[in-house]
Amino acid sequence: MSGKRGKSKSEGFRLKGRVWIEGREGTFLGYGRVVLLERIKQFGSISEAAKSMNMSYRHAWELVDSMNRQVKNPLVETATGGKGGGGARLTEAGEKAIEAFWKLYRDFNEFLEKTDKSIKFT
Amino acid sequence: MSGKRGKSKSEGFRLKGRVWIEGREGTFLGYGRVVLLERIKQFGSISEAAKSMNMSYRHAWELVDSMNRQVKNPLVETATGGKGGGGARLTEAGEKAIEAFWKLYRDFNEFLEKTDKSIKFT
Repeated sequence: MSGKRGKSKSEGFRLKGRVWIEGREGTFLGYGRVVLLERIKQFGSISEAAKSMNMSYRHAWELVDSMNRQVKNPLVETATGGKGGGGARLTEAGEKAIEAFWKLYRDFNEFLEKTDKSIKFT
Repeated sequence: MSGKRGKSKSEGFRLKGRVWIEGREGTFLGYGRVVLLERIKQFGSISEAAKSMNMSYRHAWELVDSMNRQVKNPLVETATGGKGGGGARLTEAGEKAIEAFWKLYRDFNEFLEKTDKSIKFT
């Protein structure tokens, strides 16, 4: 456990991290959910959005439902028909959520970069 | 998917996150690894440290080995005998790693608190 192992002893450490927003039911918004919202905006359909992310329709639907249940104004509106049914549309609240998350994401990456430079372990 | 579901529509969102340090082999230091280092310091033994965390000895040993392999100066020194053998001791590099991680952890929590207050989703 001590001494030398292999040749590469580079200490090129990198600070990594993840941020997400929790609501009353657990995760409300994270990287994957925000990309899903963007794809729904792009395709106007939960099933197309899901497909583009290699995600099952059921899983995508549950994520959207989880987001919508945790806010007053839903982020995604679906056409009549429910589970199997019509198209889906990003609402203004959905647009704002995407924007707010990327702002947070940028701030977090700035924090990581800034902090990364000040790390000294050994 | 739209309209009201249940009674509680509180939008008490909380920003959450996780940070860790990556080295050449993937994770170098994270919350769990640092607690493990602290327990090794406390107990002078990897197996006692593992037990106190409900972790298998094998897993703890692998974590320590992974940390040690990614630095010039090992964080933990073990007495002769290797896998089954004697006690374990936190080195000065180990102390520094613990300190540096908690510093980072505090900075990150400050970032989360500060940023949490500025989040507006809807």
